[in-house]
Amino acid sequence: MDLHDIRQLAQPSESKAMLLVLDGLGGLPLEPGGPTELEAAKTPNFDELAGHGDLGLHLPVASGVTPGSGPGHLSIFGYDPLIYRIGRGVLEALGVGFDLRPGDIAVRGNLCTVDAEGRVIDRRAGRISTEEATPVIKSLDAIEVPGGEVIVRPVKEHRFLLVARPDQPSTAEIEDTDPGRTGEPPLDVVPRTSSAEPAATLVRNWLAEIPGVLGQRDRANMGLLRGFGQLPDWPLFPDVFGWRSLAIAAYPMYRGVARLVGMDAVEVPDGPGGLLSALQAARNDYDFFFLHVKGTDKAGEDGDFDRKVATIEAVDAVLPSLLGAGPEIVLVTGDHSTPSKMRAHSWHPVPFLFAGGPGRGEKGRVKFGESACRTGTIGMIRGCELMPLLAARAGRLTKFGA
Amino acid sequence: MDLHDIRQLAQPSESKAMLLVLDGLGGLPLEPGGPTELEAAKTPNFDELAGHGDLGLHLPVASGVTPGSGPGHLSIFGYDPLIYRIGRGVLEALGVGFDLRPGDIAVRGNLCTVDAEGRVIDRRAGRISTEEATPVIKSLDAIEVPGGEVIVRPVKEHRFLLVARPDQPSTAEIEDTDPGRTGEPPLDVVPRTSSAEPAATLVRNWLAEIPGVLGQRDRANMGLLRGFGQLPDWPLFPDVFGWRSLAIAAYPMYRGVARLVGMDAVEVPDGPGGLLSALQAARNDYDFFFLHVKGTDKAGEDGDFDRKVATIEAVDAVLPSLLGAGPEIVLVTGDHSTPSKMRAHSWHPVPFLFAGGPGRGEKGRVKFGESACRTGTIGMIRGCELMPLLAARAGRLTKFGA
Repeated sequence: MDLHDIRQLAQPSESKAMLLVLDGLGGLPLEPGGPTELEAAKTPNFDELAGHGDLGLHLPVASGVTPGSGPGHLSIFGYDPLIYRIGRGVLEALGVGFDLRPGDIAVRGNLCTVDAEGRVIDRRAGRISTEEATPVIKSLDAIEVPGGEVIVRPVKEHRFLLVARPDQPSTAEIEDTDPGRTGEPPLDVVPRTSSAEPAATLVRNWLAEIPGVLGQRDRANMGLLRGFGQLPDWPLFPDVFGWRSLAIAAYPMYRGVARLVGMDAVEVPDGPGGLLSALQAARNDYDFFFLHVKGTDKAGEDGDFDRKVATIEAVDAVLPSLLGAGPEIVLVTGDHSTPSKMRAHSWHPVPFLFAGGPGRGEKGRVKFGESACRTGTIGMIRGCELMPLLAARAGRLTKFGA
Repeated sequence: MDLHDIRQLAQPSESKAMLLVLDGLGGLPLEPGGPTELEAAKTPNFDELAGHGDLGLHLPVASGVTPGSGPGHLSIFGYDPLIYRIGRGVLEALGVGFDLRPGDIAVRGNLCTVDAEGRVIDRRAGRISTEEATPVIKSLDAIEVPGGEVIVRPVKEHRFLLVARPDQPSTAEIEDTDPGRTGEPPLDVVPRTSSAEPAATLVRNWLAEIPGVLGQRDRANMGLLRGFGQLPDWPLFPDVFGWRSLAIAAYPMYRGVARLVGMDAVEVPDGPGGLLSALQAARNDYDFFFLHVKGTDKAGEDGDFDRKVATIEAVDAVLPSLLGAGPEIVLVTGDHSTPSKMRAHSWHPVPFLFAGGPGRGEKGRVKFGESACRTGTIGMIRGCELMPLLAARAGRLTKFGA
């Protein structure tokens, strides 16, 4: 069901809801048929909740498709990531915590190396270190051109964020300048429609200044741009579900995605303790709390099965206090799987647990994990179906049709 | 997820994949609750694979919809058959192994009987035998008309394939000439757009010659045409998934559907031995192998439960050798169900088995069959989700969104 339809159903309710995301929660066993990280973890509090709650697995994007962090979170916020798409530039801005304004054009940049004739000889400037890249990117940020403002921020290694703020309103329908291979010069900045000309001209003028600034360098002496985008004009989460909504997260990317859909966001120190303090502080001012735990994903990406288990157990330990802070309706899940065996995000469905509100309920105590979720009362659903289910349990959705 | 989206995610990978299709694999028990054909078969090798692999059921088209061979295979190749549709004429051409070229217009023909006034009195010419029909159809193939070439090939009984190859480029948007009932003359050849006029004119001229050729016959003296179509302009399988792809099949229909989506195809003698030899011969030149077994469907259509069981067992016996030929990532399934109890294709979901690549894995040894698949780790999915899952397991799909 489309978010515009859901918005028509939103109604007030007293109850408060919590979405607790353990990033990359889904996992795989080290041996076929063995326990996953979540199944190996001792989680008495999750299991207690599951025994009164309802379990299932969700598919964040589609079968076989491995979600990035942006689409993974959009999905559990209720935004079908195949419909609600964001450009790389906007994701990059979210990731570095850049406060993108409506009308800004964001694009992802790579420092590259060009030869004396201006042909690209290395599209990533030898994967230059962050230390070497940072002063180069600062000198790019200092370039001033007519037609508006161009802001450049370092991301990591050869990558940077470029934000164009043209004097005239402009769309972001602009072709990439990355030729995609070496031996050719960067492509021209080509607007796909006349409405994108102000930004295209501004960026073209800016690129023309780079040789004057970096021309003496024998590497990292030019920039390539990919994925021009703008803040999307989407239905906002607090409007769709009728919730005053707060994101509580240590990392800028997750506060950024939450702000993108209209939530407020607060920065906290990494770890369960930070989440709890922020939740307690904000309990009276909001109805919906999105709490983000990063450690599970990091352990998975590091290939550290045991640390992923320990991180899950640490969140489990703080769960009673989180529940004590007030939210009656709870969803615990991940934005995608990050099996430590794969050291990467993966396409595997993600376990979830609903508690509070009307539901069938699992039969007694169950172990929260992939196996119990596979045969749980809810079954396999798409990630974007989770939020309507949470809202329904919270009494926020009225009848469709009289 | 659309094939155009998947193509954006394709990346190189070293691993090789095999799709082993037992045509009409899905079955039904002879008595409610009893074993299906696959469950009755002794399949130690499939079961061993299943114990390390992941099981589920797929729905080739939609609930309650019985797939034909074309849509069934398109689905497991990743092409949603509700989106990717082919006309009857094109299917008929694939079925008889006709080498349809881009621009050809293919249409299915029926020999019919008309009276002295040209009114259809039997739409199928008394279901004339193949023996009687073949010389009639040959005489139709000899007709020459201005405006291009018209090729006619016998199919079976009263059915024939007509391929129009007009001198001028033409689309296939042409109405059927079959009036759908007796007592009326065949309908005129009516193009739905002016772009279809060259083919419509060519076919109209050709039809006008038939009375001169068959007018002395008292039955099978005219032709009716249904389902004008052309080779579709679809994303090609090797491009979408980044695989060098080979179909290995004894029957022209299956090589034809594979070629339709851009695979190479090789003809082999019927039976598991032919598949193995061809796989071994081609192992170094391709990354993806589609192997087609016809016997399961034939036994099902003949209502022969035991022969279907035996055919499944024969394929199981050759499985270790197939795996020994190199493919690490394996999908075993059917294009639809053909329960011998029904003597026909059916709408029932089809069991599948993935092996190789990252997966949760079933717990220990399981019997490959409908019941284990119903509660398998993957669950019930649409047929067109299988190929993205196979590609993901083979490491062929990168992350969606940063």
